[in-house]
Amino acid sequence: MSKEDFGGGSLLIAWQLKGKNVLIIGGGEVASQRIASILVTDAHITVISPIEGLNPRTKQLIESYAHRITHYNRVFFGTADFEGMDMILTALDDVEISRAICQMSRAAKIPVNAADIPDSCDFYFGSQIRDGPLQIMISTNGNGPKMANLIRRKVEKALTGIEGEAIAKVGELRERLKVRAPGVGGAIGKRRMKWMTNLCNAWTLEDLVLLDGETMEKLLDEGWENDCVPSPATLGSRQQSSINGIFPRWGTAYAPTIGLVVGVLCATLVIISKRR
Amino acid sequence: MSKEDFGGGSLLIAWQLKGKNVLIIGGGEVASQRIASILVTDAHITVISPIEGLNPRTKQLIESYAHRITHYNRVFFGTADFEGMDMILTALDDVEISRAICQMSRAAKIPVNAADIPDSCDFYFGSQIRDGPLQIMISTNGNGPKMANLIRRKVEKALTGIEGEAIAKVGELRERLKVRAPGVGGAIGKRRMKWMTNLCNAWTLEDLVLLDGETMEKLLDEGWENDCVPSPATLGSRQQSSINGIFPRWGTAYAPTIGLVVGVLCATLVIISKRR
Repeated sequence: MSKEDFGGGSLLIAWQLKGKNVLIIGGGEVASQRIASILVTDAHITVISPIEGLNPRTKQLIESYAHRITHYNRVFFGTADFEGMDMILTALDDVEISRAICQMSRAAKIPVNAADIPDSCDFYFGSQIRDGPLQIMISTNGNGPKMANLIRRKVEKALTGIEGEAIAKVGELRERLKVRAPGVGGAIGKRRMKWMTNLCNAWTLEDLVLLDGETMEKLLDEGWENDCVPSPATLGSRQQSSINGIFPRWGTAYAPTIGLVVGVLCATLVIISKRR
Repeated sequence: MSKEDFGGGSLLIAWQLKGKNVLIIGGGEVASQRIASILVTDAHITVISPIEGLNPRTKQLIESYAHRITHYNRVFFGTADFEGMDMILTALDDVEISRAICQMSRAAKIPVNAADIPDSCDFYFGSQIRDGPLQIMISTNGNGPKMANLIRRKVEKALTGIEGEAIAKVGELRERLKVRAPGVGGAIGKRRMKWMTNLCNAWTLEDLVLLDGETMEKLLDEGWENDCVPSPATLGSRQQSSINGIFPRWGTAYAPTIGLVVGVLCATLVIISKRR
C-alpha cells in the first residue's frame, strides 16, 4: 500500500475457482468477456442463454471449450439453476431480471456480479494483465473502465515480458526447497521465506529466468544448506543478464555525453583537416 | 488479457465490503496487514485475539480506528463467532486451528482466507498499490510474495502519480453526465459509454486532472450536447499539460542530438578562438 488512505476502496483479491462451478446468464459481448476471465481459473462454466442471444465470440468459446462449458439454450428458470453453483455472473440487457437474480444469489449466499449494475454486485471486474503465474488487475472502483484500460497499457509497457517466467522459476525453486525442508508455518516456514526473500533481492529477473533444474539444486546445495545466497556468477549460471542489465542504463544516462564527445571529435577533425 | 492462455490462474476481482462485517482471528503481523487491507473497504472489523497476542502495529490500529474495529480479548470460540460475518480471515500460527476455521467457514458459506495455508483459501491476497480511486493488485498465484513486491515497485515507477486524480475527475464527469442523461443500460447507457471512451482517448491524464466543475459543465455543453469531443484548448482549459507532455519526450529522444550540437559548437569555438 503506497499511502495509508483508509476507506472508499475495494478489497482486491485473487479468487480461487479450480474445480468450482460458475453460472453465466446471458450470451452477448459481456458474457464472452466473462467466459474468457473464468476459463483462466479452471472452473467449469454453465452458460444459460437462448442460442439467438449468443454473439459470435461467445458461440466460438462454447464450441472451442466444449469440455469446460455447458450451454443451455433457454432463458434463466430461477433458483433451481443455482444448484451446485459457486459463483453467478449476469450479462443481460434487462436490468430488472439482473437485479432479481442478484437478490436470489445473495439469499443463497453465492457471490454474484451483475454487468452494469454496480450497486447489486458483491465484486467488480477490472482490467487485467496475465503473464503465466503473474496476474495484475487494475480497478478504478467504478470510475471508468476506459481509464483502467489506459493504465493497463502503461503497466504493460513497464514490464519486460520476463516477469512471468522469473516468477515460475521462483515458484519451482520454492517447491524444491519445500521438499528439502518440509513443514507448514513455524520456524522452518520463516527460515524458508527469509532465504527466498534474500535470493529475490540479490538476483535480477534475468538471473532467475536462467535457472534450470540442475542450477536450482546447486543453488540449494551451496545456498540453503550454508544459509547464504550465492551470486549467479559463483554458481556458474550463464551471465547474459548482467550485460542486459547494464546497457539500457547506458542508453539513457550517457546518451548526451556520448553525443557531446562525438560532436567534439567530429568538429575537431573537420577543422583540423581544413587547416592543413 | 494480454495472451489467451486459459487455465492455471485466479479470478482477480475487487470485492465490495462497504457496510459489511469482517472477522480477523489472530493479532500478529499478518493480522495487522489484514486490518490495513480491510480498513480500505469501509467494512466493520472484528479482531479476536488474546491481548498478549497483539503486535504493536495491530494494537495501534485497534486504538486509532476504535470506531471501526471491535477487539475481543480472547481466543476463537467456534461458529458462534461467525454470526453476522461476511468474510473471515485467519492470521494464526496454529495451522490445525486455521484449517478447522476454514472448514467451518466453508460450511457456513462465508468466504475465508487462511494465512500461509493456500489450499484452504477461497481467495489470496496480493501486493497492492492504491492512489485514490485507482487500485492495482499484483498476484503471483502463490509463487512468491517477494516477487509480487518487486513487480509492484516496477509498476509504481511506471505511474506518474496523477492517475488517481485523473480517474477521480473522470468519475465526477461521468456522474454529471448521468444527471444530464439519466437511465441504466440501453441506448443511453451505450451513448454515454461511447462518449466517455472517446474523451479518455482524446485527452491526456494531465488534461483530465485540470478539469474543474465549471469546465466539466462547459465540456458537457459543447461536447456531449453536440456529440463531439472538444480539445482542451477549444474549451479554454489551462494548457500546462501539453508542455509537460512534450518535454519528457524531448529529454530522451533528442538528448544525444543536443549533446552533439553542443559538442560541435564548443569545439568550433575553442578552435576558432585559438586560430586568432
